[in-house]
Amino acid sequence: MESVKIFLNESEMPRHWYNIQADLPKPMPPVIHPGTHQPIGPQDLAPLFPMGLIEQEMTQERYVEIPDEVVDIYRLWRPSPLVRARNWEKALGTPARIYYKWEGVSPAGSHKPNTAVAQAWYNKQEGVKRITTETGAGQWGSALALACNFFDIECKVFMVRVSFDQKPYRRLMMQSWGATCIPSPSDHTEAGRRILEESPDTPGSLGIAISEAVEEAAARDDTKYSLGSVLNHVMLHQTIIGLESLKQFEMAGDYPDIVIGCVGGGSNFAGFAFPFMRDKLVDGKDTRVVAVEPKACPTLTKGLYRYDFGDTACTTPLLRMYTLGHRFIPAPLHAGGLRYHGMAPSVSHLYHEGLIEAKAYHQNECFEAALGFARAEGHLVAPETSHAVRAAMEEALACKDRGEAKVIAFNASGHGHFDMGAYEKYFAGEIVDYAYPEQKVAEALADLPPID
Amino acid sequence: MESVKIFLNESEMPRHWYNIQADLPKPMPPVIHPGTHQPIGPQDLAPLFPMGLIEQEMTQERYVEIPDEVVDIYRLWRPSPLVRARNWEKALGTPARIYYKWEGVSPAGSHKPNTAVAQAWYNKQEGVKRITTETGAGQWGSALALACNFFDIECKVFMVRVSFDQKPYRRLMMQSWGATCIPSPSDHTEAGRRILEESPDTPGSLGIAISEAVEEAAARDDTKYSLGSVLNHVMLHQTIIGLESLKQFEMAGDYPDIVIGCVGGGSNFAGFAFPFMRDKLVDGKDTRVVAVEPKACPTLTKGLYRYDFGDTACTTPLLRMYTLGHRFIPAPLHAGGLRYHGMAPSVSHLYHEGLIEAKAYHQNECFEAALGFARAEGHLVAPETSHAVRAAMEEALACKDRGEAKVIAFNASGHGHFDMGAYEKYFAGEIVDYAYPEQKVAEALADLPPID
Repeated sequence: MESVKIFLNESEMPRHWYNIQADLPKPMPPVIHPGTHQPIGPQDLAPLFPMGLIEQEMTQERYVEIPDEVVDIYRLWRPSPLVRARNWEKALGTPARIYYKWEGVSPAGSHKPNTAVAQAWYNKQEGVKRITTETGAGQWGSALALACNFFDIECKVFMVRVSFDQKPYRRLMMQSWGATCIPSPSDHTEAGRRILEESPDTPGSLGIAISEAVEEAAARDDTKYSLGSVLNHVMLHQTIIGLESLKQFEMAGDYPDIVIGCVGGGSNFAGFAFPFMRDKLVDGKDTRVVAVEPKACPTLTKGLYRYDFGDTACTTPLLRMYTLGHRFIPAPLHAGGLRYHGMAPSVSHLYHEGLIEAKAYHQNECFEAALGFARAEGHLVAPETSHAVRAAMEEALACKDRGEAKVIAFNASGHGHFDMGAYEKYFAGEIVDYAYPEQKVAEALADLPPID
Repeated sequence: MESVKIFLNESEMPRHWYNIQADLPKPMPPVIHPGTHQPIGPQDLAPLFPMGLIEQEMTQERYVEIPDEVVDIYRLWRPSPLVRARNWEKALGTPARIYYKWEGVSPAGSHKPNTAVAQAWYNKQEGVKRITTETGAGQWGSALALACNFFDIECKVFMVRVSFDQKPYRRLMMQSWGATCIPSPSDHTEAGRRILEESPDTPGSLGIAISEAVEEAAARDDTKYSLGSVLNHVMLHQTIIGLESLKQFEMAGDYPDIVIGCVGGGSNFAGFAFPFMRDKLVDGKDTRVVAVEPKACPTLTKGLYRYDFGDTACTTPLLRMYTLGHRFIPAPLHAGGLRYHGMAPSVSHLYHEGLIEAKAYHQNECFEAALGFARAEGHLVAPETSHAVRAAMEEALACKDRGEAKVIAFNASGHGHFDMGAYEKYFAGEIVDYAYPEQKVAEALADLPPID
């Protein structure tokens, strides 16, 4: 009997992360200072990040060694299984072979701890005592809480107030791992107090929460800030996913023709896909790599490739990326992790160069696919992940139509145990499909800084 | 670097369940018909269960083959990892080696699918089209929903109304896997209608939900009933946990001195411990086997070893077991799976014969232990599992006191993702420790059937 799950032994776990910068046919555009419009240097980032991470943000080295202590924590749940979705193949009636990498096994339930643990460790090396961050629905906040706990770092999470009130379970996870989680806007920061004064009943926003977390980190010597996606060093840490997968495909004697991941900021997609991109860029493998996003936040498929701020308050350096404009306000969307106005510069660059593809789906069709997957494979995936599931399903059905036995691989980035409320709305027919209007994208151009 | 997780390959997964009946020094007392007071035969159970399961209920064969189709479903998440809790050992400062078997990896989040899948398959073989069951907090209902889905069997779950209203997430899981989940009491059954007439606002109870599920199964030719614990065939199916663990300990070159599981009906404990009991009974291994229960429902530690009904409505055959009396009403207790008045007859028998030990803990000390475990190992366990965690912790601390490097193994029966509300109450100091009064146990004697 052939195995369904391909397990890698801990001793086989990759000991280096992969840095795609080293293999890009054309280098990425620099990050720009919003005042001087000149490329930024390490010192510009030093108030917020430890130097170890800033170096990783800029390095051109192909492989970066994973510190032993980080490996030690990874081993609590890694290597994660690569699973052949045989039941789902049967249910779809496809000749395709479908594999998924199952990141839902981490204690926080998603891929996010892969970078959280690394970031906490590099902060620890430089004597950082406290880390601040923001979180929307709570996936990132809980991952960072878990990570800081392992290295005895105080963790303070500014959680968007409406989520803080409506989704207490993620907040309780953070508390269980010893983090402080407070609703944002709060009276702990100047930014928070200003907004509370203007509108005491505000539900908060990710933009406000970022401002609070950044303000507190910049103001205190013992405190740094941590970001869960978008930046190069975050993508780097996540490549453990794809590097493991490569070894697991070797064990299975197989190799994907199509590699799929959902994209919000881009980190689970990059983590899974970049090691396969190496094979494509360096060894000339003929792999299709597909990033999948919601039609309600179509950054790659409808956005502009321009310099923009990473936050709504215009305080970050300028990143060249696909963007819907930093004033983008997402429609109600249950995939909370796919609501970002921009996209990781590295993912944007690959898309701009025509090296990866992008697709966008509506919410209902994603939930429909996720339910089919759950009925066949058991696992209930997160609403974010359901986008990758939908894309994999469509590729599998195309194989059926054409009678092709392609190999399809997707990153199952997380479970949906804390998102069953979204499934409830789907069952009740209450989820509204919404496509972000192209006109609004065009209008956002006016808000972008005048650089090109 | 030594491995933290011991993974068994799918090809090494045990292909037989272990039946402890074959190795008992003294046979178990028979199950008795409540009317005739004579031992029951297969036909007495036929209205509720398929003959394949009734045979397993009564068999004396040592090993029972696991059907290929059941193995095929098990492979979606099994073999589950055995994990060496090195971080927790360090945190406790103990020379003991602590291992936990991690059943939280199943799609339903606990060990329950191990028997649900088997039961669904045996029902399918005999042409059963529908299965009814009851569920309290929803662990068992969601496991059976998952299992029935794989074999295209209609699944109807009567869920205690108060849980149905307060804990929608488990209900949504059942719905995702295609089951019908309705609040009990309902107007679908005579029993339900009677109670609704008397008290329309009743919160329901597990006793009522059992009555409804049994009534509907007995009344319809195409429908059988399914039970998630207590019975011999359920214990049998769960032994896959301990059989895998034995192989994993062999891989690790280790063997437990102390084997621990929490007990409600007894199935996760039996599943983990019985294969180790075989080594103890047959090979003379000197293993301590410890069942852990809540002080609020101290069936083994304070109950009577007598014949009693399995349900509150006095409709089941009589089982010789430790019992608090079938009229037992549990105090508010967050470990919903540990609130049963009785105990699996097989577990009861072993305890009565002095072959296993029992311990009881308060809720707060269990949550305290679970949090320590989560801070060290990452995973947030279910409130039920926290009882096993507490017992393992106390054994580890005793080893520290005595300077002994014992090997401690416990079954981590499930994750707590749907129980974070209980953690919230713990953080808020709102969990009240309650010890069931011995006097009430003595009073319950009067309710027991006059057999001994």
